[in-house]
Amino acid sequence: MATPHEPKQDRSRATRQRLLEATIDCLAETGWAAATVAVVAERAGVSRGAAQHHFPTREELITAALEYMFDSRNEQAKEEAARLSELVDGVARTEAVVAGLVESYTSSLFKAALQVWTHAAADPVLRERIVPLEAKFGRASHRRAVEALGVDDTDPVAHHLVQATLDLARGLGLADVLTDDSARRKEIVQQWSVTLHTALNAAH
Amino acid sequence: MATPHEPKQDRSRATRQRLLEATIDCLAETGWAAATVAVVAERAGVSRGAAQHHFPTREELITAALEYMFDSRNEQAKEEAARLSELVDGVARTEAVVAGLVESYTSSLFKAALQVWTHAAADPVLRERIVPLEAKFGRASHRRAVEALGVDDTDPVAHHLVQATLDLARGLGLADVLTDDSARRKEIVQQWSVTLHTALNAAH
Repeated sequence: MATPHEPKQDRSRATRQRLLEATIDCLAETGWAAATVAVVAERAGVSRGAAQHHFPTREELITAALEYMFDSRNEQAKEEAARLSELVDGVARTEAVVAGLVESYTSSLFKAALQVWTHAAADPVLRERIVPLEAKFGRASHRRAVEALGVDDTDPVAHHLVQATLDLARGLGLADVLTDDSARRKEIVQQWSVTLHTALNAAH
Repeated sequence: MATPHEPKQDRSRATRQRLLEATIDCLAETGWAAATVAVVAERAGVSRGAAQHHFPTREELITAALEYMFDSRNEQAKEEAARLSELVDGVARTEAVVAGLVESYTSSLFKAALQVWTHAAADPVLRERIVPLEAKFGRASHRRAVEALGVDDTDPVAHHLVQATLDLARGLGLADVLTDDSARRKEIVQQWSVTLHTALNAAH
């Protein structure tokens, strides 16, 4: 069967994706206020008319970018977890898992998400939209960290230490927003990994 | 000697402080964009003219508020550390120190600072102003946590675990921005305190 509209649909999908990726880059680099439909369209190399066809308002653009952001973060986390779960058990694996997790919180995706969260803190409508997405992402991240570390999540010690590791990663991500914190971060990740590994493998 | 100008100077100082406190409340509750001199003046119950006499531009108001914020955070941390260093050694003291630290990252001061950091991520001039203040605050917080925990900071394990605890606190603060995260946070604090205490007191 002929599908004459497909090439056009493909083009439309590609345009949409370019706009969403440009939105994330704009948010991460130039902040919330600068991420308008016009600026994003220019950055994506898309005409303003075409951009407005996809996203008539800034609100629709930001909401779609948020969903795209969560999907991208999930996708990245999934690939990372699959790669890490193949490593041999031991402190080296724990460190690889912690380092991978922490690095994901220093990406453009995290920096863009931070702009949205901070704006949402004072915008109840936006907040209502983000909170369920964030909760879903948090649960998925936790599940993947548990798998990658190969621990038993029904053990409250393991459960809470995995949670703490995700909170540490978020804090290290925030510490990297204003300056390059990579040298200090590397030392923290090494020490945390040793302490985490010992605690996860202690009899209790 | 007579000091005829003192009452007027006192009034002026009190007005200035009211404006700075109103700026922090505005930032924490209504976000970066809404914290203008006019809005802050109204919230502080100060005439717009008087506010502009103290802070001719928004930039000057935000910069002064930042310094005030760092002084307040330092002051709070100092009192907290003095109180905690009097507790008896043991896991209960470690937990009290960790809980106190973490709670300080869920205050209005942290939420206001988050608005400024996030805005500064895309504003090099503001960033340049904040980074030295942040570094100074970070060093002071670290020193106070070391004192309150009663550990030897020349030991790299202790040094990095105190740093990690501050990073964890920052991450937990960020997790509290969009929803009330206090129940989950309490469990994380309890578990991390036990793990930290064990690690700090292990022979190595």
